[in-house]
Amino acid sequence: MQIALAKPITSERFLNIRNRTEQICLSLNSEDVSVQPVDFVSPPKWHLAHTTWFFEEFVLTKNKSDYKIFNKDFGYYFNSYYNNVGERVLRANRGLMTRPTFKDVLDYRAHVNKNMAQFLEGEIETEIYHVIEIGLQHEQQHQELLIYDIKYILGHQISFPTLDFDVKLHPENPNQQFIKIEEGVYEIGHNEDCFCWDNELGHHKVYLHDFEISNRLVTNAEYIDFIEAGGYRDFNLWHADGWDWITNNDITQPMYWYKVSNKWMYYTLSGYKAIEPDRPVSHISFYEAFAFAQWKDMRLPTEFEWEVASKYFDYGQLWEWANSAYLPYPNYTKAEGAIGEYNGKFMVNTMVMRGASAASPQGHCRPTYRNFFAPDNRWQFSGIRLAK
Amino acid sequence: MQIALAKPITSERFLNIRNRTEQICLSLNSEDVSVQPVDFVSPPKWHLAHTTWFFEEFVLTKNKSDYKIFNKDFGYYFNSYYNNVGERVLRANRGLMTRPTFKDVLDYRAHVNKNMAQFLEGEIETEIYHVIEIGLQHEQQHQELLIYDIKYILGHQISFPTLDFDVKLHPENPNQQFIKIEEGVYEIGHNEDCFCWDNELGHHKVYLHDFEISNRLVTNAEYIDFIEAGGYRDFNLWHADGWDWITNNDITQPMYWYKVSNKWMYYTLSGYKAIEPDRPVSHISFYEAFAFAQWKDMRLPTEFEWEVASKYFDYGQLWEWANSAYLPYPNYTKAEGAIGEYNGKFMVNTMVMRGASAASPQGHCRPTYRNFFAPDNRWQFSGIRLAK
Amino acid sequence: MQIALAKPITSERFLNIRNRTEQICLSLNSEDVSVQPVDFVSPPKWHLAHTTWFFEEFVLTKNKSDYKIFNKDFGYYFNSYYNNVGERVLRANRGLMTRPTFKDVLDYRAHVNKNMAQFLEGEIETEIYHVIEIGLQHEQQHQELLIYDIKYILGHQISFPTLDFDVKLHPENPNQQFIKIEEGVYEIGHNEDCFCWDNELGHHKVYLHDFEISNRLVTNAEYIDFIEAGGYRDFNLWHADGWDWITNNDITQPMYWYKVSNKWMYYTLSGYKAIEPDRPVSHISFYEAFAFAQWKDMRLPTEFEWEVASKYFDYGQLWEWANSAYLPYPNYTKAEGAIGEYNGKFMVNTMVMRGASAASPQGHCRPTYRNFFAPDNRWQFSGIRLAK
Amino acid sequence: MQIALAKPITSERFLNIRNRTEQICLSLNSEDVSVQPVDFVSPPKWHLAHTTWFFEEFVLTKNKSDYKIFNKDFGYYFNSYYNNVGERVLRANRGLMTRPTFKDVLDYRAHVNKNMAQFLEGEIETEIYHVIEIGLQHEQQHQELLIYDIKYILGHQISFPTLDFDVKLHPENPNQQFIKIEEGVYEIGHNEDCFCWDNELGHHKVYLHDFEISNRLVTNAEYIDFIEAGGYRDFNLWHADGWDWITNNDITQPMYWYKVSNKWMYYTLSGYKAIEPDRPVSHISFYEAFAFAQWKDMRLPTEFEWEVASKYFDYGQLWEWANSAYLPYPNYTKAEGAIGEYNGKFMVNTMVMRGASAASPQGHCRPTYRNFFAPDNRWQFSGIRLAK
Repeated sequence: MQIALAKPITSERFLNIRNRTEQICLSLNSEDVSVQPVDFVSPPKWHLAHTTWFFEEFVLTKNKSDYKIFNKDFGYYFNSYYNNVGERVLRANRGLMTRPTFKDVLDYRAHVNKNMAQFLEGEIETEIYHVIEIGLQHEQQHQELLIYDIKYILGHQISFPTLDFDVKLHPENPNQQFIKIEEGVYEIGHNEDCFCWDNELGHHKVYLHDFEISNRLVTNAEYIDFIEAGGYRDFNLWHADGWDWITNNDITQPMYWYKVSNKWMYYTLSGYKAIEPDRPVSHISFYEAFAFAQWKDMRLPTEFEWEVASKYFDYGQLWEWANSAYLPYPNYTKAEGAIGEYNGKFMVNTMVMRGASAASPQGHCRPTYRNFFAPDNRWQFSGIRLAK
Repeated sequence: MQIALAKPITSERFLNIRNRTEQICLSLNSEDVSVQPVDFVSPPKWHLAHTTWFFEEFVLTKNKSDYKIFNKDFGYYFNSYYNNVGERVLRANRGLMTRPTFKDVLDYRAHVNKNMAQFLEGEIETEIYHVIEIGLQHEQQHQELLIYDIKYILGHQISFPTLDFDVKLHPENPNQQFIKIEEGVYEIGHNEDCFCWDNELGHHKVYLHDFEISNRLVTNAEYIDFIEAGGYRDFNLWHADGWDWITNNDITQPMYWYKVSNKWMYYTLSGYKAIEPDRPVSHISFYEAFAFAQWKDMRLPTEFEWEVASKYFDYGQLWEWANSAYLPYPNYTKAEGAIGEYNGKFMVNTMVMRGASAASPQGHCRPTYRNFFAPDNRWQFSGIRLAK
Repeated sequence: MQIALAKPITSERFLNIRNRTEQICLSLNSEDVSVQPVDFVSPPKWHLAHTTWFFEEFVLTKNKSDYKIFNKDFGYYFNSYYNNVGERVLRANRGLMTRPTFKDVLDYRAHVNKNMAQFLEGEIETEIYHVIEIGLQHEQQHQELLIYDIKYILGHQISFPTLDFDVKLHPENPNQQFIKIEEGVYEIGHNEDCFCWDNELGHHKVYLHDFEISNRLVTNAEYIDFIEAGGYRDFNLWHADGWDWITNNDITQPMYWYKVSNKWMYYTLSGYKAIEPDRPVSHISFYEAFAFAQWKDMRLPTEFEWEVASKYFDYGQLWEWANSAYLPYPNYTKAEGAIGEYNGKFMVNTMVMRGASAASPQGHCRPTYRNFFAPDNRWQFSGIRLAK
Repeated sequence: MQIALAKPITSERFLNIRNRTEQICLSLNSEDVSVQPVDFVSPPKWHLAHTTWFFEEFVLTKNKSDYKIFNKDFGYYFNSYYNNVGERVLRANRGLMTRPTFKDVLDYRAHVNKNMAQFLEGEIETEIYHVIEIGLQHEQQHQELLIYDIKYILGHQISFPTLDFDVKLHPENPNQQFIKIEEGVYEIGHNEDCFCWDNELGHHKVYLHDFEISNRLVTNAEYIDFIEAGGYRDFNLWHADGWDWITNNDITQPMYWYKVSNKWMYYTLSGYKAIEPDRPVSHISFYEAFAFAQWKDMRLPTEFEWEVASKYFDYGQLWEWANSAYLPYPNYTKAEGAIGEYNGKFMVNTMVMRGASAASPQGHCRPTYRNFFAPDNRWQFSGIRLAK
């Protein structure tokens, strides 16, 4: 894996990125950060510690001679899926850990930050810079997951508390247009001298046929039309697995939506409110995105169509479902060791999402970025762009 | 239900009992009190609030004219199984509530305590005294459950933290003797002028045949003999359901026991330590108690045998499994309304336990007390007394 | 265990009992006898073979010198829960066995019958007679289970086929009366010189208080009143476990009942028909029987009350739920070895049923007989007798 | 959907195809054809009836004026996933249907065959011909599934019975070579005047990069090397979902393989035998195929690579896993109505298989054929071809 640095790594840049993680959690209490309401949501405390453990495990213990491990049990607690680095707490049990406490974890962060800042003052080999860069990118990805998980936790409290951190969505362009792209061979993948993940590499060619793609996302108003036209009751619109999913889970609307006294309401991080019709519809699964497109007699774009067309439209409010399974590019090779576990092992049973979201950190929005989720996931900030 | 007061209810007695609940939790942090590691364990925060809600719901809102409800959502949160008093949070979801916080709950307790103390200064009808008495007895039962639940929570932390609250077990009598009881008609049930639960009433006669019963509980040393003789591998000793239970759950020893480097260790609320051979074996299910007795060619006493023989031996370290299903006494009638939901509805699929434990509050140890648990429960302080 | 013979064992008696098993299955086809629609129902083919295996395993291979085992794999297939006699096919997988076929099993029966008939011509030790007696009683118990299982299988076919074997219910006595029994010491258990199961022994005394008991069972008409009065919607009538059971399984009426065009219909072995109001209500669980009695402000009798009162009323149409858990009598000792596995291991989590049913074979109806089922079972021929 | 006829439809061709279905089942008994050992396996009786129902429902009742429906309930029983044609028996309950019997189903087939033969003598509109063609192709697909399902049923009998129908595998070419294909634009999809499924249409271009592909499948001998090198214990070789799958299901070898006394054995439809090292490895999931390729430092081909390269190698022994998710081709449109439910609704969570197998009927082997299975399926005749 060829890793370019996003920007030079200074202790200032390091601490800026690290501090943002804590800022996200600023209005949370000890209970909020410890709970795991459902398997796929990790306690915020876990994110705070896991991202810190990355620097301790892969940078400090290996390279800073006077580094003292904060607590030797933390490696066991806060390893996520790195099977190569020893045992780990089962994902579904993360919410049972009441110790270490929130305060312990903040102390852990301070300890590692101080050591990293010292370490960054010295001379560092290029290869270590690359590991630190990955650590920072990794932390930023967790910042986004952290926001999803916090929304899930707060959105399942009866009192619907708000979060003091800005992740607002803006109205979509009221003038929908379909951009035409011509048949031909196009280039795909990352090809510049800046940071990207291994799954974007393997720059290669694809052949695309004529297609058209919308200049904006589907809005809440349009999605309400779909619901009220019976979209969730017509199995012809759905994949077989999607139909089973809505049937078995009684799904009749996006996550966080409620119909109260015949009025559509939703929970957002700035509170519980009437649904804003001009905002892009969010918290929908791939199954729902697909069914909506079927109902419109259109389809979702492939990830290659999206990448080619992306210079012609705005994006970045919500991750956009592609009708592409997450698979390796030609000549994809995964990195050696624990770092290599990061992407390749998820290349089955997941669908690609392109773009970025209001919850994405700076620098995580680029046309070649490949995000991926299971087709029934919808706690992430997901949206729909139509193609035909 | 005829309810006698345990003792006169003064605000001093009221606050003494209430304060003990908080003392149990004194060394816990916000995370410890919020987690629900498994369905049958409730978060300590929930116990703290639920016992408080009892006084708010059944005493203050009905009888104190100037009472202001602390927070109208709390009835929804902290009702347990009183189906008669409206919707309730599903038992398995109690651990998802991060709000109200620990601090909110302590404020709730202070608010209700203050109002109750004021209320107890005034004149009160006898019937209300009875409800308060039940509320206090109820709180004390929760104090015991609270200790079981805290032990479960702390005992599942990797660091095995201790609790600053005394629940130590003492050595059993080294001289085992079997007390003989003669055949005949005996009287059973509560018959005195002091508080008891409705399930102890219906004073009645039973006919017992000759039997013998041990003067002490089975010790850890004896139980280790059972394990090492292969007791968990010989299905002839077990009920069919017990055998399925140990097989499906890989049960090979009591809860909180570990065999490390060929040495038996256990977790207690005063820490992780080598098993003390002279202490009574605890945290065993009815299935295990039964199998142990089979292995000894003896049996467990029935609850009637236990009650009749109890004046001849010491008890109170651990609840003792009886080979009696929890069923109503002749002429049992359950109380009207929500209070009546308390006992009768559990009179199927549970087994009786007699005595009391080191975790029982004062006044909860009497020969007629009927406790009950499912035959696979073992997070409670349970032990074995043999009969033949 | 002291075993008395029900009647002298001749080859004629032997074959009469054995042939009845086949007569029950006479109108079934190969598919009907092979299916296992749900874990607790065994394929009829399995019953036919398992009862035969008993004689091969416990009588012929041990005592008839020239006996040739029909097929050595059958021991593996057709052992039920006798853990002492080697591995067994898991109960839930019995329906996957397509081989041996129905015809193979009938050949197996003929082979064993022929050998047993020969064997019964010779001189036989008393102890072996006892084993054969148990084998015949065991076969008769399976005849009854066979009828339950066949009803379940046919009752879940869309075409509701009938069975050519008579198990009709008759109208209950239209004049209900309550028989009064006086307080005192009574004798319980088997005490005669004829066959009984080990769980009936341990003849002993019990003390009963005054009670009254109905001279007849609850009828379908009365049960319809309960349903239509909302009995299945009022949690105050139910055990906590019973309420969970009806809620989780959407139970709103007895098994095999259907409300079609506002009319109550049921499936019986003589076909699908309008419910006969004067017949005793059947296919109800312990939970339902208990809730019905609560609704009537009465209760179910204990098994001791039932046994004492049974000489004063008719019984034998349906097994009657007692409010007694199935537990050992004083001085109960289970038989040695595989035969001893029969009863004792089920003495937890089950409730006693007394009497007998229209599906019971001759000689299986006596006042001391203790049948037992889990409180949610209702595919057996179960009914309700009220007490107060 | 543009449907070309595979061959002219005569009553002779019709009956030849139909009779083959019965020939496959010739050595089965009534029990074998009725059982459903696991959700994804349908009872052979169901296949026999369901394929027949297709002609009754879509051809005869709509077009043959004097046609008498054989039994009006059969539509309910034997509809599979055609949600558009009314209620259906839940897939998991197909094994509970003991009625209609095997004989009833054979009578049903004879009735429909006779009517279809009559109908085919008359004049028929082109559109109806197309429906009949689909019915025959559909029946042939079920013939293949039937063989998978029969193997599963017989392979789970303790006696390992054989099937009298030839589906033998032959040795693979001992000389492995890697065929090189050059980078460029290639054409994909069906483009000839003969029958194909809708998922093969949408003839289109793709851009391929240089790759090499094996001239033969992976053999049993090679796969044993993988097992014995610890392939099932090295998580680095597996997808995350694959690792969970082998861990949760204790998978350590292909389906139907057994290691007995240190020797590798397997069940085949011609009996239980020592594994033949030169035959292609079969009954492996996508996860296993992927892990094997990782272990070889190679990969699986994409479906486009496979299609382009297929003119250079032999195939047809086993379906070959592609590293391609099953997704629509550009311009794919699903057919209207019930027939359109056939393919599109499965285009998520499944992986493409290419080629054909020894169990495939004549005419079902063509380079553009797209088969698909879930990544953990392995009861089908699946194999591995390597690429790099």
